[in-house]
Amino acid sequence: MAPELDTRAAVEVASFADRLVEAVERKRSQLVVGLDPVAELLPMELRGDARTSRGQFADAFSRFCRGIVDAVAPYAVAVKPQIAFFEALGAEGVRAFEETCAYARQAGLLVIVDAKRGDIGSTARAYASAFLEPRPPEGPLGDALTVNTYLGRDSIEPFLSACKRHGGGLFCLVKTSNAGSIDVQDMALSDGRPLWKIVAHMVNELAQEAIGECGLSNVGAVVGATHPRAVAEARKLMPQSVFLLPGVGAQGGTPADVARAFTSGPASALVSASRSVIYAYRNDPELDWRPGAGAEAKRLRDEVWAVSGW
Amino acid sequence: MAPELDTRAAVEVASFADRLVEAVERKRSQLVVGLDPVAELLPMELRGDARTSRGQFADAFSRFCRGIVDAVAPYAVAVKPQIAFFEALGAEGVRAFEETCAYARQAGLLVIVDAKRGDIGSTARAYASAFLEPRPPEGPLGDALTVNTYLGRDSIEPFLSACKRHGGGLFCLVKTSNAGSIDVQDMALSDGRPLWKIVAHMVNELAQEAIGECGLSNVGAVVGATHPRAVAEARKLMPQSVFLLPGVGAQGGTPADVARAFTSGPASALVSASRSVIYAYRNDPELDWRPGAGAEAKRLRDEVWAVSGW
Repeated sequence: MAPELDTRAAVEVASFADRLVEAVERKRSQLVVGLDPVAELLPMELRGDARTSRGQFADAFSRFCRGIVDAVAPYAVAVKPQIAFFEALGAEGVRAFEETCAYARQAGLLVIVDAKRGDIGSTARAYASAFLEPRPPEGPLGDALTVNTYLGRDSIEPFLSACKRHGGGLFCLVKTSNAGSIDVQDMALSDGRPLWKIVAHMVNELAQEAIGECGLSNVGAVVGATHPRAVAEARKLMPQSVFLLPGVGAQGGTPADVARAFTSGPASALVSASRSVIYAYRNDPELDWRPGAGAEAKRLRDEVWAVSGW
Repeated sequence: MAPELDTRAAVEVASFADRLVEAVERKRSQLVVGLDPVAELLPMELRGDARTSRGQFADAFSRFCRGIVDAVAPYAVAVKPQIAFFEALGAEGVRAFEETCAYARQAGLLVIVDAKRGDIGSTARAYASAFLEPRPPEGPLGDALTVNTYLGRDSIEPFLSACKRHGGGLFCLVKTSNAGSIDVQDMALSDGRPLWKIVAHMVNELAQEAIGECGLSNVGAVVGATHPRAVAEARKLMPQSVFLLPGVGAQGGTPADVARAFTSGPASALVSASRSVIYAYRNDPELDWRPGAGAEAKRLRDEVWAVSGW
């Protein structure tokens, strides 16, 4: 988008899938901690700083997310900042988002930007540039990005192209965790299959174009942990894709519900939990927020690793 | 999201559809000008200012978009800033996006934020807050927002709720203008219909919840001008929705292709053109960029009004 800022040359960096496999095996963890900062839920000590301006709220978001990163870094392989919560504060919020991404990468965590972007042609390239291309002198904001598949294969290709150049990864929405996912994703096609299985087929084709040395693809899939049967079926349809499984914790899914996602290897699925980890301190008035998040991350990491069978 | 910044009380503002009808009739225009700033395509005088930093590129984007707003304000009812191009420059780009939205509203244009957001529950509420809720002391960034429908009805409802409180509008993706839209949107369902018609049915149900005094709904639909037959069919399925019709100009659609979208009234469809208007100066080395955009906006406004039959 900005020629002087854009480096089109391929960078010598291991692919997302390969870096993920290394991190999963080293940390014995398949845990992704979602960063969903919400003003009303922040610890008092941070809320006290944020009274009047968007900039002050954004500073509090940044401090909160950096504290969570410190607390969960030993137990999680990645954080998943949800950009919507930052965008709610406008440009100042996006600055806090950028600080959070940079801090997490420095802490040795992979960053999965949860933005669910989806658009066509030059617009998709602009989004890819925003999240997956290096920002000299720094790297990309994200190691991977969630993308929406409703616009079809040509809307995903610009993202995939950026991933190939810069070692990034994608998580394509296939079957989302919400109850309303049935409205579109579960529509029965003429051959009886629900729509999401066709999307899974498309994602699997894209995945074949971007297999890492580890054998897993840099094109992954979002499959809600709230639909255990769909998780097992999706695994068969996309055998080499890493699954990002939201919905464990506050949304009601359990690690046992997603055990079958791990049959393609210890790094073939990632369990994502947000509120149940980052706001764990709210269940125990004695608990400081950072150790609270760390303890819940450790507990969930251990539980997921156990059910994964590795 | 940020309690001190959030005004939950309903604001006494006319609904989006009613404000749109007033603007369309006053300007005799159904033209929306898309703002897609791309560094390589900016006029030399602006590119000269942008050499090294993201902030300088963002300043150039902001100056460019404000110049376009001045040039097209007499002929367009709305501008449609595509946020991807601004996000490519990070927080500085989002600042330029905010400046552009504020400037366009001051110039008497409606602002349709093209962000194609789609997510669930509290995340959708955060996006609604970002784009459709007031930012005291100012109003919302956008008068309306494009949203993605793949996640289902419960993912749209938080946006609709914000629209009802603050007089905003939605344009739900139904049938997009890209060739790859067939991959998912045209999948044949068990009753033979393509998927997008089911989405149109869902959008029409949501539209019934938000009819303005003018009889049109605040829940509209995106239907690509590149699919003329789908436009005519979509009109029957969503009789009270305003259609946002991208794809005229650079993507190959013509005003004649979408004439049948206007059968529900002069404001029942909006033709959106981006590159063919804002970069019109590139076709004529004698032309200054602002008058170039103004002349093309006037030409297209007149052509669309003529085919609309009003």
